[in-house]
Amino acid sequence: MPEDEFDWIKDHTPENYNHKGLIEGIGDDAAVYGYESDYDEILCVDTMIEGVHFKKQTMSPEDIGHKALAVNISDIAAMGGIPVYYIVSIALPADWSDEELSGIYQGMNDLGQMYCMDMIGGDTVSSPHDLMISVTVHGRVEKGCHLVRRSAAPGDIVFLTNPTGRSAAGLQLLLQRGREAYYSEIERELLSYHQKPVPRVDAGRVISALHVSASLNDISDGLASEVNELAEASNVSIELYKSQIPIAEELHSFADKSFWDWIFYGGEDFELVGTITETAWPMLQKNMAEQGLTIYQIGRVKEGAHLVTLLDGEQKITLEKQGYNHFK
Amino acid sequence: MPEDEFDWIKDHTPENYNHKGLIEGIGDDAAVYGYESDYDEILCVDTMIEGVHFKKQTMSPEDIGHKALAVNISDIAAMGGIPVYYIVSIALPADWSDEELSGIYQGMNDLGQMYCMDMIGGDTVSSPHDLMISVTVHGRVEKGCHLVRRSAAPGDIVFLTNPTGRSAAGLQLLLQRGREAYYSEIERELLSYHQKPVPRVDAGRVISALHVSASLNDISDGLASEVNELAEASNVSIELYKSQIPIAEELHSFADKSFWDWIFYGGEDFELVGTITETAWPMLQKNMAEQGLTIYQIGRVKEGAHLVTLLDGEQKITLEKQGYNHFK
Repeated sequence: MPEDEFDWIKDHTPENYNHKGLIEGIGDDAAVYGYESDYDEILCVDTMIEGVHFKKQTMSPEDIGHKALAVNISDIAAMGGIPVYYIVSIALPADWSDEELSGIYQGMNDLGQMYCMDMIGGDTVSSPHDLMISVTVHGRVEKGCHLVRRSAAPGDIVFLTNPTGRSAAGLQLLLQRGREAYYSEIERELLSYHQKPVPRVDAGRVISALHVSASLNDISDGLASEVNELAEASNVSIELYKSQIPIAEELHSFADKSFWDWIFYGGEDFELVGTITETAWPMLQKNMAEQGLTIYQIGRVKEGAHLVTLLDGEQKITLEKQGYNHFK
Repeated sequence: MPEDEFDWIKDHTPENYNHKGLIEGIGDDAAVYGYESDYDEILCVDTMIEGVHFKKQTMSPEDIGHKALAVNISDIAAMGGIPVYYIVSIALPADWSDEELSGIYQGMNDLGQMYCMDMIGGDTVSSPHDLMISVTVHGRVEKGCHLVRRSAAPGDIVFLTNPTGRSAAGLQLLLQRGREAYYSEIERELLSYHQKPVPRVDAGRVISALHVSASLNDISDGLASEVNELAEASNVSIELYKSQIPIAEELHSFADKSFWDWIFYGGEDFELVGTITETAWPMLQKNMAEQGLTIYQIGRVKEGAHLVTLLDGEQKITLEKQGYNHFK
């Protein structure tokens, strides 16, 4: 496994592509290409593996299907696009039943229908050990309106669609007690953020419809890591203000130390984090509110070579790009 | 694992799709959808898993990359399309080195460049046990010109692009001796049909350019199985004539019994098999010859409920739809 996937990808990205219609190749949440049409097309794939991304102890078959599709819809959302079609590839070990397999498809179907998506193909092969599910999603976005990570500029507002950290809190509960145990209502909420995350397509659409300079990224590997990606891709530094970071109510019963860790390094929130010009920020707030969607200012883009710092009163802490590891 | 994947897919195929632009959903080699353009778009995915589809003993990293992309290009070829972009998802176990991973990408790149394709994205995750590689390919075909399995009609000629069985012969050699052993020139040819199969995009393009009623399928699971798929999808019966089935020269040193088994049940040939009206057959032969491509008549489409029979003089043998299993 390459030590830094980001560097590894950079080394393996071709300098030139063959097709002139390619708009975004390797390196963002999804690829974008265009033909003779008013829309550009988006394509992305994500794979989930038993024992790495989920366990039977933490996720039902329906949850697994839901999440495998959700992570891809989230990539489309992070490009400002509309998800349209998906294709599924499942490698199934002998200890998974046909009912469980059907449950996985049910979970995908239930989520896909919420976005009017169609499953248009796929294959099922046998797997010697672990269940693997790989989902490809095709989406669309109005020509020239897709959002990338590299558009952050000094002076921009850094925004976040919803509080982070609840998925990680839910995972901790699941690892402690298993998914069949008793949970309070609040705890079940947290479980749901982990098992059935909701991709923020609507929010992505509001941002891309503004037609202003904005950058966008979805939070799969933790807020700290994804803000670092924005900073690196845009060659800027970013300051986050601890007093502005939203804290989910459900987290208040946990110790301070745990929930701040989850908020910055928890992973699998599938919220959107991005940047927008100060001029456009009020309009974004207004449009989001009109759609019944939340958005929080959490920081500012600064000049400099992609340092991400958290300001807490007088204190300055560097937020490292620390990858999220599900079960460690 | 569902006992009959074909039945299982049918049970899980929705009766209605949400998107009107969808032309071919689940059930053929690839999905096809269209927008406001002179071209329709094709999307397919295929997954290869260590221990199921390949072993280190039989395939180098470059071979694995080549084949993972080739099987998908072959699906595009079977729709009569042009492959354009691909996305890769790899799950990598700890015992695979960065060099081996680079080799896999090199194999894909070498093949992709032959078709002017671009790799436009993907992800690498860790895998607890087996290497898994899932490739998604996006292609295009002139509006309305894609080829499906369900268009075979009684009276049609059944054709095949090249002899089958060489991949299976190569696999047998590899399983006996490993890929580092000494091989004669002819044996190396056979190995190459297994390790570096050539998808038949040119042939698919010649067939789709005819604008006549034709059906098409690529041979991943053996000639017998794929002809059964054509018969089932078209609700016809098919007769193959043993005297017309091409036998590759490289197979003559093997026992009769082995090579006929490989020809019909060997799998992973990635040739194209299809049907075309008798009227159009001479034109197809002529156009293929002009492109320096081979094509063989191997049978006829008949009325009836999808029985596939092999005629050998006076003898009639039913060719069962027997799935191909790599290592059994």
